[in-house]
Amino acid sequence: MITHEQRMQKKKELVDRKIAAAKVERGVLVVNTGNGKGKSTAAFGVVARALGHHMRVAVVQFVKGRSDCGEETFFRALPGVAWHVGGEGFTWETQDKERDAAAARLAWEVACGHLGDPGVGLVVLDEMTYAFKYGWLDLEAVLAVLRSRPARQHVIVTGRAAPQALRDAADTVSDMGMEKHAFQSGVKAMPGLEW
Amino acid sequence: MITHEQRMQKKKELVDRKIAAAKVERGVLVVNTGNGKGKSTAAFGVVARALGHHMRVAVVQFVKGRSDCGEETFFRALPGVAWHVGGEGFTWETQDKERDAAAARLAWEVACGHLGDPGVGLVVLDEMTYAFKYGWLDLEAVLAVLRSRPARQHVIVTGRAAPQALRDAADTVSDMGMEKHAFQSGVKAMPGLEW
Repeated sequence: MITHEQRMQKKKELVDRKIAAAKVERGVLVVNTGNGKGKSTAAFGVVARALGHHMRVAVVQFVKGRSDCGEETFFRALPGVAWHVGGEGFTWETQDKERDAAAARLAWEVACGHLGDPGVGLVVLDEMTYAFKYGWLDLEAVLAVLRSRPARQHVIVTGRAAPQALRDAADTVSDMGMEKHAFQSGVKAMPGLEW
Repeated sequence: MITHEQRMQKKKELVDRKIAAAKVERGVLVVNTGNGKGKSTAAFGVVARALGHHMRVAVVQFVKGRSDCGEETFFRALPGVAWHVGGEGFTWETQDKERDAAAARLAWEVACGHLGDPGVGLVVLDEMTYAFKYGWLDLEAVLAVLRSRPARQHVIVTGRAAPQALRDAADTVSDMGMEKHAFQSGVKAMPGLEW
């Protein structure tokens, strides 16, 4: 009979082998996509993590629904964080295609500054996938910049429906699925939780 | 022909109707589960968000792989954050069932203190699902405490394989799926990104 200790020992060996096999140290490109909650939020969690390792962090938000988000208030006040809000809202809020496109192009210019700076350890390109969906940015041009970024720089791209070429270019792709959401039971978007 | 503006207007109306219908203001129970990255990380993002709204936050970690995590270094130093590390590692690391169980029970006692305090706006029960998987905690007893927590308090439970009764009790369930991960290409767990 296999005991609990033996099962745990086997698991440990398996995990240890996997960890031992992963030896490359370099910047990682992460894509958080899917229809569920947690894509941007997980990126903000990594911002905290990176700051805990005394890295400099840049957050560029391509679309933004409201101006009083807790994460922005919180992180903006900290040294080591550069925070740029590009868009003025999801496109169905602004109803102005040209203004949205211009805001996204400006956000990308700001992002390029950080993507060229080896002193920036983490760059978050929040809700950037919409810029591809609506044709505000050229995906190939963006991928070229991402490929030539500093070798140790991590990048996280968030947003629904990440295009396949971006998924292919990424090292890590998480697909956040929504099983259920509080608003379906009539609960408002709560401060400190949703924004 | 339907123009871009008309499409956007229609989307906006749909989203507006959904938002208008959601009027309840109360604490929300969130479960971040699945095999992908971002379960704990999204919870840490919400911690930042809550702090941005000047809420008090408690994080209780039921299992913990290492002691030098960036998020812990970062958040522990802040006023308004209570941080408790319950377990000493994933159970296949510690190889000691009784010690793991005792650590989880102690973590739950600490959590109960926060879950009874209306001054705490957000409680993160990190990697708590393992406590059910390994039988360290009784799910029904935990759900009873969650149900009787302060009305405005948000709770986030993270971990793989959340039990069905916990999903049923939750307002929001996100299932983080792994499409691919950097370690599969031999990249080490990088500081500031993975820990």
